[in-house]
Parts: sequence; C-alpha cells; structure tokens
Amino acid sequence: MSKTWTLAELAAATQTQIQGQANKLIHAVASIEHAQAQELSYIRDRKYVHLLPTSKAGALILTADLAAHYQGDALISTNPYLTYARVVTLFNPMVRPAAGIHPSAVIAEDVELGEGVHIGAHAVLEAGVRVGAETVIGAGCVLGTKVKLGAHSLLYPKVVLYSDTEIGDRALIHSGAVIGADGFGFVPEAAGWYKIPQVGNVVIGDDVEIGANTCIDRAAMGSTRIGNGVKLDNHIHLAHNVQIGDHTVIAGCTGIAGSARIGSHCQISGMCSIAGHLTIADRVIITGTSFVINSITEPGVYSSGVTVEEHSLWRKNAVRFRQLDQMARRLAKLEKQLAELQKNKD
Amino acid sequence: MSKTWTLAELAAATQTQIQGQANKLIHAVASIEHAQAQELSYIRDRKYVHLLPTSKAGALILTADLAAHYQGDALISTNPYLTYARVVTLFNPMVRPAAGIHPSAVIAEDVELGEGVHIGAHAVLEAGVRVGAETVIGAGCVLGTKVKLGAHSLLYPKVVLYSDTEIGDRALIHSGAVIGADGFGFVPEAAGWYKIPQVGNVVIGDDVEIGANTCIDRAAMGSTRIGNGVKLDNHIHLAHNVQIGDHTVIAGCTGIAGSARIGSHCQISGMCSIAGHLTIADRVIITGTSFVINSITEPGVYSSGVTVEEHSLWRKNAVRFRQLDQMARRLAKLEKQLAELQKNKD
Amino acid sequence: MSKTWTLAELAAATQTQIQGQANKLIHAVASIEHAQAQELSYIRDRKYVHLLPTSKAGALILTADLAAHYQGDALISTNPYLTYARVVTLFNPMVRPAAGIHPSAVIAEDVELGEGVHIGAHAVLEAGVRVGAETVIGAGCVLGTKVKLGAHSLLYPKVVLYSDTEIGDRALIHSGAVIGADGFGFVPEAAGWYKIPQVGNVVIGDDVEIGANTCIDRAAMGSTRIGNGVKLDNHIHLAHNVQIGDHTVIAGCTGIAGSARIGSHCQISGMCSIAGHLTIADRVIITGTSFVINSITEPGVYSSGVTVEEHSLWRKNAVRFRQLDQMARRLAKLEKQLAELQKNKD
Repeated sequence: MSKTWTLAELAAATQTQIQGQANKLIHAVASIEHAQAQELSYIRDRKYVHLLPTSKAGALILTADLAAHYQGDALISTNPYLTYARVVTLFNPMVRPAAGIHPSAVIAEDVELGEGVHIGAHAVLEAGVRVGAETVIGAGCVLGTKVKLGAHSLLYPKVVLYSDTEIGDRALIHSGAVIGADGFGFVPEAAGWYKIPQVGNVVIGDDVEIGANTCIDRAAMGSTRIGNGVKLDNHIHLAHNVQIGDHTVIAGCTGIAGSARIGSHCQISGMCSIAGHLTIADRVIITGTSFVINSITEPGVYSSGVTVEEHSLWRKNAVRFRQLDQMARRLAKLEKQLAELQKNKD
Repeated sequence: MSKTWTLAELAAATQTQIQGQANKLIHAVASIEHAQAQELSYIRDRKYVHLLPTSKAGALILTADLAAHYQGDALISTNPYLTYARVVTLFNPMVRPAAGIHPSAVIAEDVELGEGVHIGAHAVLEAGVRVGAETVIGAGCVLGTKVKLGAHSLLYPKVVLYSDTEIGDRALIHSGAVIGADGFGFVPEAAGWYKIPQVGNVVIGDDVEIGANTCIDRAAMGSTRIGNGVKLDNHIHLAHNVQIGDHTVIAGCTGIAGSARIGSHCQISGMCSIAGHLTIADRVIITGTSFVINSITEPGVYSSGVTVEEHSLWRKNAVRFRQLDQMARRLAKLEKQLAELQKNKD
Repeated sequence: MSKTWTLAELAAATQTQIQGQANKLIHAVASIEHAQAQELSYIRDRKYVHLLPTSKAGALILTADLAAHYQGDALISTNPYLTYARVVTLFNPMVRPAAGIHPSAVIAEDVELGEGVHIGAHAVLEAGVRVGAETVIGAGCVLGTKVKLGAHSLLYPKVVLYSDTEIGDRALIHSGAVIGADGFGFVPEAAGWYKIPQVGNVVIGDDVEIGANTCIDRAAMGSTRIGNGVKLDNHIHLAHNVQIGDHTVIAGCTGIAGSARIGSHCQISGMCSIAGHLTIADRVIITGTSFVINSITEPGVYSSGVTVEEHSLWRKNAVRFRQLDQMARRLAKLEKQLAELQKNKD
C-alpha cells in the first residue's frame, strides 16, 4: 500500500547522508533481525553493533561512527532512532477520513466546525462546541457544551469531553479517554459526605497525546492544566487541579492526586502514585511503581518499590519490614555496648 | 450566568451568621488568594490565618474564633469548609436537561420511565428497564435488561449498566463506568480454564457517586453490594461479591478483590490493593498505595508502601530488602554473642 | 426461568456418579450455607467438611472421599468445584440475542458477516471487517477497518477494536475494553517528543476473555499477541508488542510494559507491574502488587510488596527503609569488631 522510496529520497526527507547506492529501492521498514533485502532498519547505538555482520537489511540507519564498520548501503544520521521514526512515518502516513458529518451524528445548531472536519457515526456535539479545521472526531465521541477542540486533532471512537474542556491543536486522544469528569471532592457532614461542586474545567495545550481509558478530572475551581507536548499513556488518572508542565511524559496506570504540580520535561514511569498538593521540579525522572508523597525540588532520577523474589523468601523478608525500626534500635544499642566493651578493655 | 446573592441571602441559605454588611453583594466564589471585592472565599482552619490581612475577598466564611481576628464582612460558620461547599452549590446549581427522549435513543417497549426523565442521544434501554423520576441518562449510555435505576440520578455519557443492576436514588455516575460486568472466576481444567458463569448482580444504594472508568463486577452468585452514600473515584476496580458499607469513600485506582467486605465510613486512599475474602471494620482509614492481605478488625489508620528516594540510594536499599531476614538473624546472633562476652567478663 | 433438572440428568451432563435418589429434582444452585431443599451445592475440599452436618441443600457435589461422610443425595465428582461450575452453566445457559442487525448500526458495504450474527444498536463496523458465525456485537461497539473477529464470540456494549485487530473464536470481551490503540512510543527531539507511528496490530487467539476497561495496545511493528485461552480481568494494561502465552490468567489492574514476553499457564495476580523487554517462563505464579523488573526463568511463586500495619508503626519502619544499606554495613562492621574482640580474648 505505501509507496516505495529510494535511499536518496529518504535521505532528503530525513536530512541524512547516503552511504552507498542512492537509487536503492526501499519498500518497508523492519527490525534489524527481520529486515530483508528491500527493507530499511537501524541500530540505535553501539550496544547492537554485533548485529551488523549478519543483517540482511537492504539498508541501515547508522551513526557515522557505526557506518565506518559497515560495508552496505546506509543513511548516516546523528540520531538513528529519530531518523527511523521519521522513516516509519514516511512509510505510514496518517490516512484521515474524508471531511463530512455522518448522518447519524447529533450536532447542536450553534456548533462551529472548521474546514475539513470529519465527524463519525453516532458522535454527539452539544451546544456551543467549537472544533478546529481538519480535526477528526471518531464514532461515538461525545463533546459536551462549550468544548473547544483545536485543529488537526484526532479523537478515536468513544472519547468523552465534558463541558467546558479546552484542547489545543494536533491532539491525539484514544478511545475511552474521559476528560473533564468531576474531581473527587467531598466535605464530611453529619449525614455522610457533601459533594463540592466541581465548577472548574480542563485546559490542554497543543500536541498532546492521551491514551486509552485515561481520565483527567476537571478542576474544583479554576483549571486542571496539561501543557504543550505532554504525552499520556493508557489508564492514567489525573485528579482535579493537577498541573502538568510542557513535554512531560507519563506511562500507563500512573495516578496523580489533586492539585499536584508536575514540572516540564519530566518522565514518569508506569504505576506510580503521586500524592496531592506537592510540586515536582522540571526534568525529574521517576521510575516505575514509585510512591511520591513529598515535593521533589531537584532534577534527577527518583525511585521506590521493592522487586519480586521467590515467595517463601519474600514472606520472611516482608515480615521483617515491620521490625525495621526495632532492628535499627537494637543495632544502635549493640554499637554502643561494643564501644563500651572496647573502651573498658583498653 | 449564576445569580448574585446578598450576604444575608447566603447566611439564610447556609444557616450561618453575618458579620458586617448584610446587603453586601456576592457574585461568585473564589480561593482566598484570588478572590476579589465581589467574591466570597473561606479559610478552612487556623493554619491559613496568615492569609487574612492580605485577602481582597469581598467576604469570608470563618469560624467565630477566626472572625474575631477579621474586620471585614463574613459569614460565621461552625464548619467553614462545608459552608463554602454549600455556597458553591448555590452559585452553581445543577442544570438538568429538559425531560424527553432523544429520537436516536433505542428504548425497549416495556421500559418504565418516571416523570421528567431525560434520555440522551444514542442511549439504549433494553427490555424490562425501570428508571425513576427526574433521572438523566447521558448520550450513549446502555442499560441492559431489567436494570433498575432510581430517581433524581445522573448518568454522564457512555455509562454501561449490565443486566439486572439495581441502583438507588440520586446516583451520579461518570462516563466510562461499567457496572455489572462478569466477575473473574475460572476453574482449572485439563484444557485450560472453565468459566464459572457469573449469575449474580450488582446492588447499589442511594446517594452513590461512581467515577469515570470505574468498574464494579456482578456477583458470581448473589449480589455485589455498594451501600448508601458511598463515593468512588475514577479507575476503581471492585471485583465480584465485594461489599462496601454505607458512606465509605474510595480514591482513584484502588482495586478490591473478590468477596472482600469493607465496613461503613471507611476512607481508602488511591492505588490501594485489598485482597479477597477479608473483612475491614467500620471507620478504618487506609493511606495511599497500601496493600491489605488480612482482615482489619479495629478502626484506625493503616499504611504500607515505601516512598521515593534518589535512584542510586534506592538501588542499594532495595537490594538489602532481600537480605532483611538474614540481617535480622545476624543481629540476634550478635546480641547473643555480646551478652555472652559481657557475662564472661563479669 | 431456568429449567429443573433431576440428579440423574445432572450426573449425565457432568459425567459424575449419583449417590441417593436419581430422580431428585433440583431447581437451582446455591452456596452451602444458603442452599435449600431443592437446591444443589458443593464442598470444594475437606476444609469445609464441618459444614456437611448442617447443610439443608437438596444435594451436594462431593468427592467420593467426602461422600462417605454424607448420608444425603450427592453427585460424586473427582473435581467438585469444576462440576459445580458446569452445573451453574446448565442452570444459566447463555441467552444470545436473535440474529440480525439493528437498523441504527452503521455497517460498511464490504463487511463480511457469518451466519447468525447479531449486531446491536449504534454499533459501527468499518470497511473490510469480517465477523464469524453466531457472534454477538453489543450496542455501540466500534470495529475499525479490517478487523477480523471469530465465530461464537460476544462483545458487550462499547468495546472498541482498532483497525487490523484479529481475534479468534469464542472471545468474550467486556464493555469499555479498547484493543489496538497506539503503543506509547516517542523519540526525544529538540522540540519535545517525536511520535513513532504504531504500525503493528493486535492478534488474539481463541477462547480469550477480556475484562471491562482493559486495554491492549497494538504493536509498534509486528503484533502484540495474546495466546489461546488467556483470561484477562478488568483494568489491565498490556503495552505494545507484549506476548502472552496460552492459558495465562491475569487479574485486575495489572500493567505489563512494552515487549514483555509472558509464558503460558502463568497466573498473575492483581495490581502487578511488569517491566518491558523481559521474559517470564511458563507456569510462573506472581502474587498481588508484585513488581517485576528482571526475567523469571523458572516456574514457581514470586512475590513482592509490603503489607499494611498501623500508621505510626509504618512511619517509623518506612523511614528505616532508606537506611537499610547503611544498617547492613553497620551490621557487618559490628560482626567484624566482635570477631576481633573474641579472637583477642582467646
């Protein structure tokens, strides 16, 4: 389906240099282990240099350094992984559906739609919605009142944007994502819990990707804010009034509690728990399953979590965890006693 | 959009006393840092008393104690946070859509609908469904056969209630919630796993809120039961036959395994894991990321989880976790040896 | 609703032996504590033998060993739990809706549907979709272009299958599941993150069950593969290029990162986190909340996680976790000093 490219065309499109035959035809991209004679592959770094001699790939994307060890055709790049990603994009251009509104979609009278918008079957756009040019709204999506969605965006089927949500340009939102549901806020009262109306909204920048079944709650008051270029994986939970800085990426199943402020260019791995009302600095990296209950003020890598071991060993060690403080005190006492003993001896 | 209130009207509506001008006009509610001359704010407790002198708010909700330190207009409340929540409600009354059934909704012939029910676009109500008065069913919701949903409830778009689910009055259910899917029950057999049909249902009390993309599974046999006034955040997983007592609140991403019985008035934080077939007493508080594998019989606060530290320190400490039991044994041995040494010395 | 069975009929259908009256009428199945005179129950193993004398059940499913202690009517089975599950199935046969396409469904012209397929209201089947015989597609499901779905399958409402997803026969997929959304793959570039197009798909075997709101991402390249007989609970996240071997079961809220290879016949409990690019052997059992960052090469039971204790104790112990490495070093130093002391003394 995708067109065939010459190495020269690929070099021009990705701003890389050619080593070998400029008119070599490339039909597809593949991993270095599987690539065949008309396919292009890449090596990310020197760690994989041992795969070079046995590769059957028609051409490889390599650094100049690696290319010196390779006789075959190649594209020379300062960043082979990025060049590879760009070539994958060339071979797999996004096919946007034709402009138009499916007759089964339900669109309020005052909705404003940009040029070239596509609205899928059974989508619902409520009063006051505004959608930018060339945006695609998948089947069964629901955009509540006064939602603003930018241009060149793509909502896969069954995305729900609650009323007043604002999203920038080039958004990519996967199925089942729910943006703008109520934050979780209650005040104890005699009869149980009194709901604090969640009267804020969600404001999302440009170039944001949101994974399947991820939820971003509306603010109690004001806005939950997601910066430009933020990438969110599946099953993420961002509570009310969370702030995420530009270009931060968050992996699957992570939850961030209310009013937490995450910096820009952070990398947060999967299944992390971040408590509310704290601040995380820019360029902080948090590894998988970490539990953060205090602010992090310096860039760096932060971790917690205990990894698996054989079950019967784990049982013994896990029990001792509850004795840790007592163990520490006994250790200190021993040190003191021994010091005393040695002093007396001298 | 929302109407303007005098301080006197707000005092009457919230059963609080006025300090200062009864006819002061209030246009909106805002946080103490942002509130302007026609806005009302509050201070939750003495911790924020330092914000009083610089506040630009038109009026504040304060305890009598705090009001003594404040010259401006105020509402005097025994519980400023609750009064604030009530005032937010006054300024943001729930706007329910008009009664009626959208022509694209698919409603079985024998469905019974109370007065004033609103059914959104593309909703589906299967045979035998009964819905109470004034309830709103959002776009694209699906109510399976024989679902009973009470009065004055609100289902946001794309909620799925499986057959036989029963929900009380004043429910608030957010998008993507799935109530009544099969519990996870299989018996090993030679060929793999034999599915145990999940023939029970889910029964939910009055005044329950259920967050976006939360799942409550139907019982294997009998009912999964959620009490009155229970509040569930997003991304919660309640397995088959779980029982949740009245007025218990559970924060996002927590999972509770099959047949666990949670008491009433409990507070369970986010990302907790609670094992199956155990019992948790009333008024138990469980902090974030806790892992519960045994019953908890006494009210109190319970915790587990290890919090982040700098990555290279974590690596060293995490490795030692696997040596904990061995360390404890070495410690005991040292204590014995030292005692022996000291005895011999005496 | 369900028909009445004689004990003889049940014995024939489940290949078990009768003890007592072959013509005993059974109307339903119930737990041993609740079963009445016309109901059948079971005891799983000797642990529950004390319940035998007081049971009011009309008949019990028992092992031959247990039946020797019981005077009443019984079905004798080598595996009472499995027989019980089979009897529950007999009393609760799956009622598939009648064949046919709801007029509100939107079906592309070239879709191929097997005999007896049912397609619910507002479902969408895009170009090139193929569905096997007797399969039921619930209300509001969306099947993207070229999806292949096998025969005798059941999709509950609001399942989304992205383009190119392939699923075998007898699949059971619950509401809110999203299969085939983009994997989470980005390359850092000067301006932020460059998206790696996710051009692979998801391939799922026969007899697979997928829980509510579970997500399985499409491969970056190639296929994310789920074997035959795999059972997935709710809220599971399987990242791009994950491989799950046949008959592996995974409980709720577990996340598995990219390119992890899980063996066959594994049992992975809830809320586990499994890192990417590792391999887990066949028949590995992983207990709840475990964190796996290295390959597991041998069958066995593996665990991690620390369980709750009273909050003030936890605070003391959790702080000590950060001193663990230091404590281990101090312990070793003490051992050395004491050994020295003893040597000098001798």
